Amino acid sequence: MCGIVGYIGEKQAAPILLDGLEKLEYRGYDSSGIAVFDGKQIQMKKSMGRLKVLNELTHGGATLPGCAGIGHTRWATHGEPSDTNAHPHMNKDSSIVVVHNGIIENYLKLKKKLIDKGYEFQSDTDTEVLVQLLDYYYKGNPFEAITKVMHRVDGSYALGIMFKEYPGEIYAVRKESPLIVGTSNEGNFIASDVPAILKYTRNVYFIENEEIVRIRENELKFYNTDEEEIKKEYTTIEWDIEAAEKGGYEHFMLKEINEQPKAVADTLNPRLKDGKVYIEELNMTDEEIIAIKKICIIACGSAYHTGVTAKYIFEGIARIPVEVDLASEFRYRNPILEKDTLVIIVSQSGETADSLAALREAKKRGVKVLGIVNVVGSSIAREADNVMYTWAGPEIAVATTKAYSTQLIAQYLLAIQFAYVRGKISDIELEEMIRDLKRLPDQIELLVNNKEKIQKFANRYIAAKDIFFIGRGIDYAISLEGSLKLKEISYIHSEAYAAGELKHGTISLIEDGTLVTAVLTQEELYQKMISNMVEVRTRGAFVLAITNEGNTDVERAADYVIYIPQTNKYFTNSLAIIPLQLFGYYVSVGKGCDVDKPRNLAKSVTVE
Amino acid sequence: MCGIVGYIGEKQAAPILLDGLEKLEYRGYDSSGIAVFDGKQIQMKKSMGRLKVLNELTHGGATLPGCAGIGHTRWATHGEPSDTNAHPHMNKDSSIVVVHNGIIENYLKLKKKLIDKGYEFQSDTDTEVLVQLLDYYYKGNPFEAITKVMHRVDGSYALGIMFKEYPGEIYAVRKESPLIVGTSNEGNFIASDVPAILKYTRNVYFIENEEIVRIRENELKFYNTDEEEIKKEYTTIEWDIEAAEKGGYEHFMLKEINEQPKAVADTLNPRLKDGKVYIEELNMTDEEIIAIKKICIIACGSAYHTGVTAKYIFEGIARIPVEVDLASEFRYRNPILEKDTLVIIVSQSGETADSLAALREAKKRGVKVLGIVNVVGSSIAREADNVMYTWAGPEIAVATTKAYSTQLIAQYLLAIQFAYVRGKISDIELEEMIRDLKRLPDQIELLVNNKEKIQKFANRYIAAKDIFFIGRGIDYAISLEGSLKLKEISYIHSEAYAAGELKHGTISLIEDGTLVTAVLTQEELYQKMISNMVEVRTRGAFVLAITNEGNTDVERAADYVIYIPQTNKYFTNSLAIIPLQLFGYYVSVGKGCDVDKPRNLAKSVTVE
Repeated sequence: MCGIVGYIGEKQAAPILLDGLEKLEYRGYDSSGIAVFDGKQIQMKKSMGRLKVLNELTHGGATLPGCAGIGHTRWATHGEPSDTNAHPHMNKDSSIVVVHNGIIENYLKLKKKLIDKGYEFQSDTDTEVLVQLLDYYYKGNPFEAITKVMHRVDGSYALGIMFKEYPGEIYAVRKESPLIVGTSNEGNFIASDVPAILKYTRNVYFIENEEIVRIRENELKFYNTDEEEIKKEYTTIEWDIEAAEKGGYEHFMLKEINEQPKAVADTLNPRLKDGKVYIEELNMTDEEIIAIKKICIIACGSAYHTGVTAKYIFEGIARIPVEVDLASEFRYRNPILEKDTLVIIVSQSGETADSLAALREAKKRGVKVLGIVNVVGSSIAREADNVMYTWAGPEIAVATTKAYSTQLIAQYLLAIQFAYVRGKISDIELEEMIRDLKRLPDQIELLVNNKEKIQKFANRYIAAKDIFFIGRGIDYAISLEGSLKLKEISYIHSEAYAAGELKHGTISLIEDGTLVTAVLTQEELYQKMISNMVEVRTRGAFVLAITNEGNTDVERAADYVIYIPQTNKYFTNSLAIIPLQLFGYYVSVGKGCDVDKPRNLAKSVTVE
Repeated sequence: MCGIVGYIGEKQAAPILLDGLEKLEYRGYDSSGIAVFDGKQIQMKKSMGRLKVLNELTHGGATLPGCAGIGHTRWATHGEPSDTNAHPHMNKDSSIVVVHNGIIENYLKLKKKLIDKGYEFQSDTDTEVLVQLLDYYYKGNPFEAITKVMHRVDGSYALGIMFKEYPGEIYAVRKESPLIVGTSNEGNFIASDVPAILKYTRNVYFIENEEIVRIRENELKFYNTDEEEIKKEYTTIEWDIEAAEKGGYEHFMLKEINEQPKAVADTLNPRLKDGKVYIEELNMTDEEIIAIKKICIIACGSAYHTGVTAKYIFEGIARIPVEVDLASEFRYRNPILEKDTLVIIVSQSGETADSLAALREAKKRGVKVLGIVNVVGSSIAREADNVMYTWAGPEIAVATTKAYSTQLIAQYLLAIQFAYVRGKISDIELEEMIRDLKRLPDQIELLVNNKEKIQKFANRYIAAKDIFFIGRGIDYAISLEGSLKLKEISYIHSEAYAAGELKHGTISLIEDGTLVTAVLTQEELYQKMISNMVEVRTRGAFVLAITNEGNTDVERAADYVIYIPQTNKYFTNSLAIIPLQLFGYYVSVGKGCDVDKPRNLAKSVTVE
């Protein structure tokens, strides 16, 4: 969960590296560093804290001459954030330098071995083991040293490596961590992600596991671990970097919340034609859809929450049993995957390490995998049997909003299509659902525009220590997401509960004034929710209710009410999430937290 | 989630009622009250707070003469704890009096109607609606008034009712809330649960939904809502009240933690014969076991957590797909229950309202239901197709320990038996598993005896605001239970996470000194857990690890380590839970909380 970048070409490297790191800061920002070959030796500068510290330290890179270098922005895993633990890391005589994204799992064992051989370690990182190992195995041939190291470490990595003896070359290699290579007339690049180099080139190679890359100023070569050259095709990136700018908003998160009507419409409209759902990229015949016996939805974090929602919808309208799994759990629990199971992997970045591993596990077992992914050409998009893109555009804030909303839409469309093909909904029901889907963008806009009401309310809860979210059925799914949105950016310990479970323990945490957010959009569960709200209120809780327009009698059981427009009962999550996103946002702003880059978190979790 | 009791006979009623309420205080203790017919009129005393207040107020009942009365101990749902909201509730002229356990869902509507007709309400409770409605419908015939009320209220109830015009009678009725009737030579009783009357009689009738009971000094009659008499048989209760005493321990919870070796052995041993598992009461042929396509485990609270554990085991060794559901969610989500599904309902009390409703939902759909229940003759035990008892004995502390442990054992036995019958484990594997099962009681005892180590550690965390529990796979299941154990009795906001999910949000809550309890008993997940522990430690967390004996290298990644003995990898939850129970217990004791009766909670959740 770090970012790496590298450049070799005709220009000065350091400013390009710093510029690239800025675009990768979403992957980590505990410390940063760059190493540049100045013609004689490798010079390195690194520093704890945000990139701007390194920028000042090097006068925007000016103090580091040379046209070949690598850089790193860190999200600390092994070893606390500090100058010493910052990357790059060098061997003792400064002849080899490494930047690393990933985790080396057997580093303690390797470190012990190297110490026994007389190596001395400067840092607490797992990465330093890599550079010392390279030193140990390097006998003049970079390939030999790199492949020996690759075969001795367990874990995940994307590496940028320079050898003093090969000043005109940068090596890169990956396993389970993302890596791309960019090429231009002015030089060549490596990076963890496309935005880092988009200012310089749109021509990008996606590197696969265990591929080794050697870049020179005017040459790019790809090898397997047997030093055999591999031919690769580049992809031209279509989306525009301008889209990733804040456009007048104080934070990316608020900008992205505001972009939801468009993101939802963009994901929806191309798949609605002549009053029907068409998911071209699905690539499944009606017979295949009818044959589905079970769906496994696998994801992490907010994407997992969209799966929890989708389970209700797939089961409710298409009557297909659904199992929703955390990717980090799925891959290790020896899951029972029967024939005619469809696995759906949901991921914004398409690089989420656990989700990618789950995908591979499913494919290994011969099960068909559908990816729901936002980033075109990402690993999950490439490896899934079929991919359904969410058209949310680049999402920068660590807390997802518009990607989440489009993931819901993609799954609504699938569920409706499956239900229709399987004869579980009539033409009239289909028509009504499509009508309600089409209304969602305007309804979302209405809720976004009403943000002042939430802002005012949020200001009261800036000092809260604990907040609870309760709901039943599909409203429990949205409670999970509402709780995560709040906690990840405001550092308030919030927790979501299926409302009926509160009494089995958590209700003992309710004190005078504790905020309980109750979502109740489902008519058949309405009275049960009112009972639960009365229970917590009786214990002193302050109850914020989110319910459908027209349910005005909820005001007897709640202290504050936010109404959402009427829609199909299966789509209410798309509306209820808007006030919850805004609540999290405004509490975070009110507390003065770093909204877009919360502590300890990174946007794309490419380690396990 | 209240307790009701009633007596009519030759003795003074008030002391008997007070004595019965004491045994029911586990069901609620916000307020209590009794009403007694003194020969001329109905006299009532009630008070906010624990029963001892009412005891003092009435001089142990001495100030209330009369041989017929009803009593109530309250867990507040509608209306805050107060004298006015305490039960019993009377009509305006004190001619009808009611005690109620349950929730009336449509009480607002009914209240409005009565107010429109000129009724005045004293309390905020839903119960007062019942007594005013009885007043409204009473024209001289108690049956007529009671059935009219029953047909107009939605929700759950067990009621005790007295009419001034019928001084020699007490009426009782139930729907979805527990009610028993006891009979003796010295009078007759009604109660929410057996312990309330066990001092006076062991002959007990279990009342079914919508049955109406009329008790007189020397007569018991049961009716349906058409006033037709029903013949019922009584059950003689075998277990002894002495077992429910503290036996020298400071708290029931500690006593029950200590009783776990015996409870586990009692649940295990009768089902192990000649090196095989025999579950006599299972009543399933080998063919039926082989035919099972899916298992749904449905439960609430800690019992739900045993289901989460059991999923890993059923899937792992018997290769039967398992879905685990919260009962409060299952019953409303229109679940897909296919043929050859086995539903397992787990409940200590056998009266958990949501679990009982889920059982009925499953049976309505024609699916076979197996109950795993601790209380003999309870509603779930009676209504399930088959019942497998856990032999934990009476559990008094609100936080379950020994019932939880025996629920695990019951499910181990089922999983092993299913796996063996289906040919998924060999005779040797069976033998090894049984050997490991037999060792569990002694291993649990060892851990219980080592409690001082936990006590010392727990004292450091009495002031903690937030505590996290992490684990992967089956260790995630035990983290859920460890977290609940802590939070429900210590009021510290703890939360359990699948370790791989922390990075998707919750890790932002980790600050310097935050306690993270990591459970790592699974060899194949060990390195992944070490990585997660290092991650949180890097963020400042203090890490308590619970792992298997021999994993001493964990000490490099943890600040404090508790070792559990070696056992089969599927049984580690039974050992890892012991230090977690003790941790919750000692934190609660250290904070001076009411360990056995935490605020806001009741032992048996008989409302939804």
